[in-house]
Amino acid sequence: MPGEGVFELGDLPLKSGATLRNAKIAYKTHGHLSGDKSNVILYLTPIAAQHGDIEWMIGPGRALDPERNFIIVLDQLGNGLSSSPSNTAPPQDRGRFPTINIQDNIAAQYRLITEGFGISQVALVTGYSMGAQQAFQWAVSHPDMVERIAPFCGTAKTTPHNAVFLMGVRAALTADSAWLNGDYKNQPIEGMRALARVYAGWGFSQAFYKQELYRQMGFARLEDFVAGFWERRYAGRDANNLLSMLRTWELNDVSATPGFDGSLERALGAIKAKATVMASETDLYFTPADIQSDAEHIPGSRFRIIPSLWGHLAGAGLNRADSRFIEDEINSLLSS
Amino acid sequence: MPGEGVFELGDLPLKSGATLRNAKIAYKTHGHLSGDKSNVILYLTPIAAQHGDIEWMIGPGRALDPERNFIIVLDQLGNGLSSSPSNTAPPQDRGRFPTINIQDNIAAQYRLITEGFGISQVALVTGYSMGAQQAFQWAVSHPDMVERIAPFCGTAKTTPHNAVFLMGVRAALTADSAWLNGDYKNQPIEGMRALARVYAGWGFSQAFYKQELYRQMGFARLEDFVAGFWERRYAGRDANNLLSMLRTWELNDVSATPGFDGSLERALGAIKAKATVMASETDLYFTPADIQSDAEHIPGSRFRIIPSLWGHLAGAGLNRADSRFIEDEINSLLSS
Repeated sequence: MPGEGVFELGDLPLKSGATLRNAKIAYKTHGHLSGDKSNVILYLTPIAAQHGDIEWMIGPGRALDPERNFIIVLDQLGNGLSSSPSNTAPPQDRGRFPTINIQDNIAAQYRLITEGFGISQVALVTGYSMGAQQAFQWAVSHPDMVERIAPFCGTAKTTPHNAVFLMGVRAALTADSAWLNGDYKNQPIEGMRALARVYAGWGFSQAFYKQELYRQMGFARLEDFVAGFWERRYAGRDANNLLSMLRTWELNDVSATPGFDGSLERALGAIKAKATVMASETDLYFTPADIQSDAEHIPGSRFRIIPSLWGHLAGAGLNRADSRFIEDEINSLLSS
Repeated sequence: MPGEGVFELGDLPLKSGATLRNAKIAYKTHGHLSGDKSNVILYLTPIAAQHGDIEWMIGPGRALDPERNFIIVLDQLGNGLSSSPSNTAPPQDRGRFPTINIQDNIAAQYRLITEGFGISQVALVTGYSMGAQQAFQWAVSHPDMVERIAPFCGTAKTTPHNAVFLMGVRAALTADSAWLNGDYKNQPIEGMRALARVYAGWGFSQAFYKQELYRQMGFARLEDFVAGFWERRYAGRDANNLLSMLRTWELNDVSATPGFDGSLERALGAIKAKATVMASETDLYFTPADIQSDAEHIPGSRFRIIPSLWGHLAGAGLNRADSRFIEDEINSLLSS
């Protein structure tokens, strides 16, 4: 049955060696599970997003069609709905929330899918950005369970430059002394604004700003856009939650999956899923070159460049052309 | 005679309409002025640099050769040696220091050159990054005085994306509540560190980090490099000075020169100097496309791409290949 839910995981052992107590994973489903349970799509959340924030691709006639598929949107740990710094009891609350790896997310999601829904086969795993990271990890961790993956605008292992970008984002937030190492009473507003402004430069391409494409989003001036889109995007978020997810992103590495000895080539080479891997032509931190390199290590994968000036945000469902490109590719993959 | 000096300008009227009281401009010369005063090179400072920080290109056998040329390294306003927030008396001290435009820098430099040195002809104006901005402006403001320009890794007008990048840098610094709107007692250390970390992602290219080229600078690990190069680079600087120069950079626009009605094409088209304009192939904020566009509007200019993975810092004199490329181009230009 469709709807929102929270699945209790009990104590979740983490890759770091710590155990997350009373862990839970939130989700929302769309559509109906078919009798043979063959129509399952997992759709994974990027940073700073909850299941309700990424529904642009879901709907009748869209790539993720509830009339055909049973779509489960899975909230990543740290996003405020699944176990997060903001909703976990002491002593694992706030800045003391344990470090989450992408593999921990997949372990939690796997339990929900298998124990909660009794599903043993997944037709497609897809996601944007950190959602793409999770899609790669699903295919590496559960090669016989995942039939297809469509990660877009994300890599299977965080690159060094991407880690430096994240350092800057984190430093901007934590420079606000109101942050108090995570024990803030009120959100560190100045730090969140700074994080948003740093993100603004990275999120879209140079040409996007030059051509003032933010006008298509209803903003008349650059400053309005930075305040009205970027600052607003993070204004309602919890700082510790964001920092937790930034750390998860920084550590992302499918080659750290047991059995691959840190070899990215071997980890990606073990994927059995059919893969369509997409990059935005102008993405400044998940570059086409880096994503292509991942795709080339996946047997029989298809690499596609989204021809866009929208930078990383090409994958965010903000403009019709990019969304259509991504959905067309997912449709092709699903019908193969 | 060679040496360091400070030239007193008295009251300097600024483009903003304000007047900078008791303005001064610092400089350092290398070499000797020839009898006919035909061997003058102006070398201009980028952000967060003083005349002693950019001497890599100066020396016997280097592009700026004191045995042949009289080289005047000019400190930009705000850099801590020329009039700056940190060295100006109340009521124009600290956060109350007036807004400086690139054109104000050129006005101050022009007075030093003409009144101080009695020079009426300049063989070459060159500079990196904000130094390039000043070189463009020299050629626009004084077309009959400047024979050649060699701006590298900078544009004649700050692009919108570049302005967004600067917003992020500024927000990271000012998120530190120790900044106190410029009335800090001690430097806002956390904010300066955040600024440095944000800069780290922009300064070099994605490939620079992937290939760990920082090893060529003696850093074994990424974190060492970010702390030992980037944080150290800004650690000794004054926050208000940096913010002043960031604002100057943001406002940079040769088309705002009187007489051009905001037309970048016309302003650049009025340049009479021979110009060699260089961009780094992998510069993330002064992109090759933007710099090429500037060059194409300058009659008879030559546009050259520095084939480098060092991003914007290709122009900082940090590696032999890039430095040689730049110096070879300047040598060619000087002998033409």
